[in-house]
Parts: sequence; C-alpha cells; structure tokens
Amino acid sequence: MHPAKTSRGTRGITITVSDRIITLTTDFGLKDPYVAEMKAAILGISPASTLVDITHEIEKFNIRMGAFVLSCAANYFPNGTIHVAVVDPSVGTRRRPVLIETKRGFFIGPDNGVLLLAAEKDGIKTFREITKQHLMLPEVSNTFHGRDVFAPAAAHLASGVETKEFGPELSEIFRPLFARVTNEKGVLTGQILHLDDFGNIITNITLAQMAHLGSPNQLKIGLGHRVLELKFRKTYGEAESNEALALIGSHTYLEIAVNQGNAVEEFKVKTGDRIAVSAR
Amino acid sequence: MHPAKTSRGTRGITITVSDRIITLTTDFGLKDPYVAEMKAAILGISPASTLVDITHEIEKFNIRMGAFVLSCAANYFPNGTIHVAVVDPSVGTRRRPVLIETKRGFFIGPDNGVLLLAAEKDGIKTFREITKQHLMLPEVSNTFHGRDVFAPAAAHLASGVETKEFGPELSEIFRPLFARVTNEKGVLTGQILHLDDFGNIITNITLAQMAHLGSPNQLKIGLGHRVLELKFRKTYGEAESNEALALIGSHTYLEIAVNQGNAVEEFKVKTGDRIAVSAR
Amino acid sequence: MHPAKTSRGTRGITITVSDRIITLTTDFGLKDPYVAEMKAAILGISPASTLVDITHEIEKFNIRMGAFVLSCAANYFPNGTIHVAVVDPSVGTRRRPVLIETKRGFFIGPDNGVLLLAAEKDGIKTFREITKQHLMLPEVSNTFHGRDVFAPAAAHLASGVETKEFGPELSEIFRPLFARVTNEKGVLTGQILHLDDFGNIITNITLAQMAHLGSPNQLKIGLGHRVLELKFRKTYGEAESNEALALIGSHTYLEIAVNQGNAVEEFKVKTGDRIAVSAR
Repeated sequence: MHPAKTSRGTRGITITVSDRIITLTTDFGLKDPYVAEMKAAILGISPASTLVDITHEIEKFNIRMGAFVLSCAANYFPNGTIHVAVVDPSVGTRRRPVLIETKRGFFIGPDNGVLLLAAEKDGIKTFREITKQHLMLPEVSNTFHGRDVFAPAAAHLASGVETKEFGPELSEIFRPLFARVTNEKGVLTGQILHLDDFGNIITNITLAQMAHLGSPNQLKIGLGHRVLELKFRKTYGEAESNEALALIGSHTYLEIAVNQGNAVEEFKVKTGDRIAVSAR
Repeated sequence: MHPAKTSRGTRGITITVSDRIITLTTDFGLKDPYVAEMKAAILGISPASTLVDITHEIEKFNIRMGAFVLSCAANYFPNGTIHVAVVDPSVGTRRRPVLIETKRGFFIGPDNGVLLLAAEKDGIKTFREITKQHLMLPEVSNTFHGRDVFAPAAAHLASGVETKEFGPELSEIFRPLFARVTNEKGVLTGQILHLDDFGNIITNITLAQMAHLGSPNQLKIGLGHRVLELKFRKTYGEAESNEALALIGSHTYLEIAVNQGNAVEEFKVKTGDRIAVSAR
Repeated sequence: MHPAKTSRGTRGITITVSDRIITLTTDFGLKDPYVAEMKAAILGISPASTLVDITHEIEKFNIRMGAFVLSCAANYFPNGTIHVAVVDPSVGTRRRPVLIETKRGFFIGPDNGVLLLAAEKDGIKTFREITKQHLMLPEVSNTFHGRDVFAPAAAHLASGVETKEFGPELSEIFRPLFARVTNEKGVLTGQILHLDDFGNIITNITLAQMAHLGSPNQLKIGLGHRVLELKFRKTYGEAESNEALALIGSHTYLEIAVNQGNAVEEFKVKTGDRIAVSAR
C-alpha cells in the first residue's frame, strides 16, 4: 500500500524503504517560517517522507480555492499519498481536525470543506476526528494546528500508525455549499467553483455526476436568470469560433467556455453562483 | 547523531541510510537560478541530503529579519539538522564564513549575526571560521559564497566530515545589536526585533532570559520615553479587551500585545528600538 | 552512471539506492496546481527521484529567459541529472517534444530552444523526438505536455529506460536566434541574451566560443551602430571606476559591464540586439 523505494543491493538483497508522499496545500505564503515549521514537524517524526508542495499561495482564508486546487492536483498523485491542507480561518474554535481515508489515499486538515472535493473524487471510505494528543506535537497552540496537529498526524500515518488510532469515526462531515450538488429529476444543481485565467467558468459538478444525465449532445443550463442551451463537447475546438459550449475540463469538472473567447465576460458570473444542468 | 532513514529489509536486515536535513534561508528570491545552484552544489557532494527551504523571501540584505525567521523555524527541526542562512550584504569583504555547532545542530553562513539568534536558542558549543578550500567548490567567486562556500560546507558536514576539519575555532563571534540582551541588577535590556502582521511587538528577549526575573505577574517595561506596567500572561485572552499585556509568543521571545488590538499602532515603535524589562 | 545513495548497512553490506535528480524549470508560477501535477506524475513512476525546482517564475512564454536561467543553473548539477524545462507557448501544435542526451546529463522539453543553451554547454551527444505513448501518461492533453509527456519521460529515464526507447533520433534540432553564434574570420556574432539587475549586458557568446579569439587583452565590440574598444578582464575591479569592460561572467557568457556603473543605461541596449566581437 505504501509507495516504496526498492533497490537491489550488491548482494542481491531487495531492500524496501517506506517513503510515503505527503503533500502540503496552505494559505501561508512562503515568506514566513510557517511552512518550514510544518515540514520540520513532519521530518522529526517521519524522516523518510517525500514532501511535495502543492501550493502555499491559496488566497488567505479562501477555503473554496484551496479545495479546488487540492482536488485538481491530488488526482495525479499515486495511491497511498497523504494530503495535508490548511486553509483554516476558524483554527482554535470548535471546528474539528479530521482524517479522511479514501479509496486512493488520505486527507488531513480542518473539517471546513477544504478537503472534501478532493476526497469525494477519490471515494471516501471513513472519516475520523483527530483527537489523540500523543499523535500531536507536545504543545498544541491555539493558532497553528497546521504544525501542531495536522503535520504530526500526517507523519505518524506515514510511519505506519493505523487510521483508527487517531480518534473516533464521525457520523457526518461538514459539507460546504461549494461541495453540494443535488440531482432532482435529472436536474443537477451546483455552483460556480472557480473562474480561470482564460475566462472559463468551472462548476463543482463532476464527471461522475454528469454521468447521471447519460451522454447528451446538448445541455440546458440555468445560470442566474438565463437559460442557455449549449453543445456538450470534448474539446473547445468542437464549437464555432466565439460559440459558448460546455465540456469536462482537465480537472474533471463541468465547465462553460467560449471557443477562442471569454465565458466569464460573456456571462458575467462570479464564484458561488448557482447553476442547474439537465440533458436536452 | 545523524537523523537517519531506518528500514527493515525483506530478510530482516536493518539498513540505515544517513540522510541529514539541510535547511536554506536566503534573500535570493525564487526567480533567479541562485537557490537551485546552492541545491546543486549540495546534492553533488551529498546526494542523500533532505533539503528544506525555510524561506528565500527575506528582504534583500535584512539580516535581522533573516535571523528572526531562522530562529523561529529552526526550533522545530530535529537534532542534527544543518541550517544554512545567506543574507550576506558584505560577501567578498573581510566578514568571515562560519560554522557554529550547537547542542542540537549546526548553523552555516556569514558571521554577520544572521545565525546567532537561532544558534543561541539551541546553546552554542563551538564556532569556527570556514577556511579549508578543499571543502569549498573548486572556484570560489567573490559574489556568491552561498553556492561556493556555505552549500558545500553543509554538504560535507552532512557526509560525515567533522566540524574541526573546516577551520580554526574563533575566540569570538560577531554579535549584532539585535542579538544583545544585558541583565543589570534585574533589568533586562534588549531591542525590538520584529513587528508582526497582527500588530504584536516582538523583542529579542528570550524565554530563557526572562527566567532570570523569576515568575512575575506584572512587568515594568521601558519603551522609548514611556514606562509601562503590564500584566505578564500566558495568552492574549488573559487581558481585558484592548488591554496591553506582555507574554512569551510561540516563537519563544517576549512580546507586547494588545488583546484584540494593535500594539504597534498603540505604542508607535519600530524595529531596533530599545526595551528595558524588570519584574514589578 | 546514476548518482546514487550509498550506505553501509549494519552488517557491512553496501546498499545502493538509485536516486536520480530531476530538475524543473517552468513559467507556471506557484499559485496553480500545475507544478505539483508534474511532480505527482514523476513520483508516480519514479518514487525515488530527487526533485529540485530551478524556478517556476520564468516570464510567461519567455523562452529566452527560460533558456538562460536553465543554462546557468544546470551547470552546477552533478552528472546524470535530468533537466525538464517547460516554457511552451506552442504546446499542442507541431513543435516536437525532445529528449537531448549530453556528455553530462539529459534535457527534456519542447523543441523550441528552451533546452539548447544548457545542452550545448554540456556538449550534445544525441537528440530524439519523444513519440512513444507508453512512456507518457495514459491520457495526453493538448494543453499540458509538462505533466502528460515531459514529466513522465523524465521519470521513466530516471527509472532506467534507455534514451533510444523514447523515439527516433532527429536529424536537426530547432535553433532559435538566441542560440546562434557565428565565427567568420575571427568575428564572433551573437546577440544580447539578458540584462541583469545590476545593469550588466549578458550576451549569448560562451567562454568556449571566446577561446577561438585567443586570449586578447582588448576586444572590439560592435553593438548597434557603435563600435566599442574594451578591456577584456577577469573581474570588474580591473577597470577604472565608471569604465566599461568585457569579461566572462560567473554564468560563463561574455558580458559587458561598467565598473561600479550600469552598462544597460550607458549603452541603451535590449535583449535580442546583435553583437559582434573580435580581438583587437
């Protein structure tokens, strides 16, 4: 289950060095010592971990952006990877620290939705509250659970501690609006997750959810007060120049684009806006 | 002494791969090739080193900021870690390259104070000038000792070269004003080290130095022309709303804060200002 | 051939863990998930690789700047290093993905010149088009060959796949203007590659090319409409204060500088300008 370094020694003995990948996604920036302190906490417990930064430039406290970027990147990491995400405006309050086990890996962070898009893509198996103090740093501050709780949890998990050792299973996990998609009578209702630099409108409706609509050629899309009828295609180039279309982007979310144009400008939307999608 | 990767091979043989952590703190930024050149120099000598960036976004030539950030982060790294810090406005002049051994690890960089706060927190054992050319890159430029002197020194140390091989012990180390705290008849005199984003005033007086005052509930603090009498507490919340207080921050320095307010605005101080502290 | 981690186990058995260095140079920035997706693709194939960022802050689509920064940094990496550079404005068009083997290592990226300065410094042995789909990610997008083609190629190479497995040798490689230097009757003609923060003018003429002029003390340099006669020295300080001179910079390219002054302001040049150099 662990990705591992394997090597054949000079006498033909195969050695396996456990070397779990731990990724980090935060809104801490790179100017302050915070990210390095998290890495120090991890390496102090699990020196053989391979640390990979996803980004530390999430906008301060923008949980939705953290969730989106993590869900894009996590997809490409090998099975067994441990993802830590800390966009945590409510640190020190009652929001819970959680460990989610999925069919492909692990997600650790605050239970505020930052982990949810990525974890649901992988398929959630269990989620637990992290409560066991011996798996945290000896002193836990009220302001920096990234270093004192989440980094040590990831490191202990990488070192072979079982998920059930971290705390009790939770009956439910926090589900922010940006992680909710409903399907009522063939109408998927979600929201706009992200507007990218190319002017594409990225929704929170996944490839898997779109499968409930069959394989339509044409979609009816409610966007604010408008109702659009758009081609549903594989690539931008399958629409006319300046024609709007819908497609599944490389991040596996439904997006609305304008071929060689800018859908954000054309439809004047913002993140959080409601979207309703059905086959036509 | 070295932190190590340990693994039980498939035949039950325990293998230890020496894998020293080397941290980097610089004012080089991430746009230019300089940081990568330092890493290349290290990996060419010691390929099994684990490299961790503390930050490369120290303000250009701001030695005090480099010293502060390093001293915050270094604290969390495991014993045996080698810290390289290069904020080096006087590179190529007579300032000496130094290697400091502490009770917990090693610090390498210019002898201009950038290493001192962190090294003193750990407890300095020895300091040496780095003079041995065979432990540097073959060609040493006048402008980039980070790559040509400090990175190779760290890598050779990680590879097992003894500290005494690097050069002669020094009788004294450069002590900048921001690293000086005096204790005269129960009055600790230091200076303001850093003003953080929350408006807290961080001094250069450490937890260990404060212990000389016993455990007072109240401190008398001279700050410019003012004399303050402040509660000395564990957390911000132990003062009234908008009340100023003194506490030891998570970075282990004495700080002055205003609960739910901004101490920097209230007291109009700047980094480098003198502060005198006694028990009341 | 591979740089390797070597360690003596507790029973005196020497273990070698193959651990190739893979460097990354891109114009992707660190805010988006793209760099992490490349690292994920690499670690999924070759988990023991040591990843080193050169920079991800190349100006968007500035191939010349990518080529320059890579050629500076690559120089310091050990033999066997695999360098991936992705500044790729023409991704998805007919420009070819290439793998260049040099006397010291490997370069992987688009065949648009971004690899060429670095590869030529090392001495090119072979170059190949990367065509084999089984050495790419299962789905290759039209927009992100960094993740889908170049990262997997680097990882497979690190894992021991032979260069000849990646695709056919090419008869020629794309040679952008900024990689061309001609030598006609003792006149080297090249162009201005980079203007650094200190006001030095860096040309694309290398130390090796300058050797064709012998070891002159004085150079005749055509720069736009001017003809300069400059001392050719080892260090800035060998000219008078405010005197212009020519020298080989630490990046091993010919540069024009003004001792204690600013050559860019004095000569009002821009990158891409033609330069002609001969011994006087």
